[in-house]
Amino acid sequence: MKLNENFSNLNKNYLFLKISKKIQEFEKESPKKNIIKLGIGDVTLPLCDAAIEAMQKALLEMGKKETFRGYGPEGGYDFLKQGVQWYYQKRDVDLDLDEIFISDGAKNDVANILDIFGLNNVSLIPDPVYPVYLDTNIMAGNKILYLQANVENNFLPMPDEAMKADIIYLCSPNNPTGEVYDSIGLKKWIDYAIKMEAIILFDAAYEAFISEDSLPHSIFEIEGAKKCAIEFCSLSKTAGFTGTRCSYTIIPKELKFGGRSLNDFWLRRQTTKFNGVPYIIQRGAEAIFTERGQMQVTESIAYYKENARVITQALKKLDIWFTGGKNSPYIWMKTPKNLTSWEFFDVLLSEAGVVGTPGLGFGANGEGFFRLTAFGNKGDTVEAVSRLRACVMNLGR
Amino acid sequence: MKLNENFSNLNKNYLFLKISKKIQEFEKESPKKNIIKLGIGDVTLPLCDAAIEAMQKALLEMGKKETFRGYGPEGGYDFLKQGVQWYYQKRDVDLDLDEIFISDGAKNDVANILDIFGLNNVSLIPDPVYPVYLDTNIMAGNKILYLQANVENNFLPMPDEAMKADIIYLCSPNNPTGEVYDSIGLKKWIDYAIKMEAIILFDAAYEAFISEDSLPHSIFEIEGAKKCAIEFCSLSKTAGFTGTRCSYTIIPKELKFGGRSLNDFWLRRQTTKFNGVPYIIQRGAEAIFTERGQMQVTESIAYYKENARVITQALKKLDIWFTGGKNSPYIWMKTPKNLTSWEFFDVLLSEAGVVGTPGLGFGANGEGFFRLTAFGNKGDTVEAVSRLRACVMNLGR
Repeated sequence: MKLNENFSNLNKNYLFLKISKKIQEFEKESPKKNIIKLGIGDVTLPLCDAAIEAMQKALLEMGKKETFRGYGPEGGYDFLKQGVQWYYQKRDVDLDLDEIFISDGAKNDVANILDIFGLNNVSLIPDPVYPVYLDTNIMAGNKILYLQANVENNFLPMPDEAMKADIIYLCSPNNPTGEVYDSIGLKKWIDYAIKMEAIILFDAAYEAFISEDSLPHSIFEIEGAKKCAIEFCSLSKTAGFTGTRCSYTIIPKELKFGGRSLNDFWLRRQTTKFNGVPYIIQRGAEAIFTERGQMQVTESIAYYKENARVITQALKKLDIWFTGGKNSPYIWMKTPKNLTSWEFFDVLLSEAGVVGTPGLGFGANGEGFFRLTAFGNKGDTVEAVSRLRACVMNLGR
Repeated sequence: MKLNENFSNLNKNYLFLKISKKIQEFEKESPKKNIIKLGIGDVTLPLCDAAIEAMQKALLEMGKKETFRGYGPEGGYDFLKQGVQWYYQKRDVDLDLDEIFISDGAKNDVANILDIFGLNNVSLIPDPVYPVYLDTNIMAGNKILYLQANVENNFLPMPDEAMKADIIYLCSPNNPTGEVYDSIGLKKWIDYAIKMEAIILFDAAYEAFISEDSLPHSIFEIEGAKKCAIEFCSLSKTAGFTGTRCSYTIIPKELKFGGRSLNDFWLRRQTTKFNGVPYIIQRGAEAIFTERGQMQVTESIAYYKENARVITQALKKLDIWFTGGKNSPYIWMKTPKNLTSWEFFDVLLSEAGVVGTPGLGFGANGEGFFRLTAFGNKGDTVEAVSRLRACVMNLGR
């Protein structure tokens, strides 16, 4: 039996595993120090009442023979798809229900989507970016080109026709940099993709954090996108579903390559390899896509954004270059004193007891940068920022 | 961009889709006829109290900041793994917690496991069998050998050393035939796999239906299995979780090929492409693996088994050859009057308003056979059997 040899090309140290090991070591050595984690992008506020109540009701249904539900449609119940449809309509994006696929994670779908593509595609992956794009392409044995994101292009790289790509990954608002493509930028990517006969995989997991009205939440707000893009979105960050698991993937029926519909390919993939999201969870997710649910999740997002404001204000005062924080829960800062990103991680942990994410974990261009997240609770974030300030000023001496 | 051309080799008509279209047509033509479905293998009894109560408690935790949970471990929480461990210990199978992977469906895992295997493996797939094994291997472009199951071997085919396989699929209790390998049969498969340096993918989704004490529920009850097998199991049929979604996959740490651990490969696959089962659902599943939960699910299984008894008794009286029903919710019957399996499907639907599954849907050797399931409610099953009897006797005239 032959194993998938591509696995041996994966980076051995999975980023967050390495971080958690370093934290464990630190806790062993300094058991009294209180660590504040602004590292992994996990939420801290509870599920909103609307979702909890809907799931309680669904649970009661599951406990009675008359209302019990077995297998649901692999691609999700219509009641939830209608909620997603309503959510997109608010931004003037019209979707048919069968263009919406409910799933248990944007990560899962952005990873599993490679099943429908052939071998020997060339994938264009931003550097730095969320590591899952890279790792899943390595596992699939795809050829990888890196899209250089850096200070010069404000970490929003634009297409270059000299680069011939088949599969283009865009993440906006970006993880880790927090930057967002505007409509003009996305239009250029769409024109490029159509010209190259390439597909854009658009990760919109953080769209709910966009504050500036002019910025697109969905690539389908831009003309031409339905001919070249698949969009992945999730309730993980929008509604605190990281431990509850519900996401949605949009594949327009217009999206065809060689006359063949990608929607058909994905439907076949999902009916064969997936059995749908738990009924109870889908009812919770449905409740998010109501006026009441939206009001409640908007409150949580406002709470996180206030954290982001606290962090970015401190960085401004310290005169540290950064991106993000305005339309995103992520703040991407330059390390002080030109420390490497792991050096700064170690200093910040040992001196301040604050955990962030070394930029290098997101790609070579992340060297010299550091990611902080706004998902902590307010008191911790204020305290972490004060410790960060002291640590940086101490480095300055 | 290149699509996965293997998809074009898939059978266009997904079995259950074709069945549901035929039912729709029939309902349109004969709107007054009450159809009884003994087709798709979906459960009908509600979740047990133990699971419902555990999930209610978990929901309350998710609604409070102090007890809220975000991302869980991709491979499942220890509290649930300990439950699975306890369940295996009852049959003298010792497992470490990190040999247990919690997932959202045995179908998903049995499909996704191919990610860790290389290209150009030869897969040995029983005919007839659950169609997902075949379809996922076609999608992956693997070479496929068929393992001939038929009346001569009582639908329990044994290994043949002339067949060189890398990946061996065994499903026991079998879907669709309901037959179960005994320890001697499994030992032969294990010896064969070790000799061939092949892996056995053992689908035990229906193990909870085994009545005869001497029959193995897990392949790991048999010596040598930890060196050559991965086992997939699920709460779907054991505890009515088809719409609630929780399963577990066992990959022993001893399982190595060329010195490399398949447990490590799958861990990397899951951490990269999966984010775990919802916390709420895992708490519900945990409750199944307690004395109280076991008592409750055993009651449901007894209910279904009584249905199976009703069906098999009628077939005996009609002198129709069948397998299954004793250690399985499935009854696999020969079609009367040598009808093809789709002919019998059409007759049974139009004459009796009873839906079963044509054997051909499970492979070429399923021609001339038909699958009935015991998952209906008792009244319907009794009524369906009475209609089936009339229909068969009518054919006899």
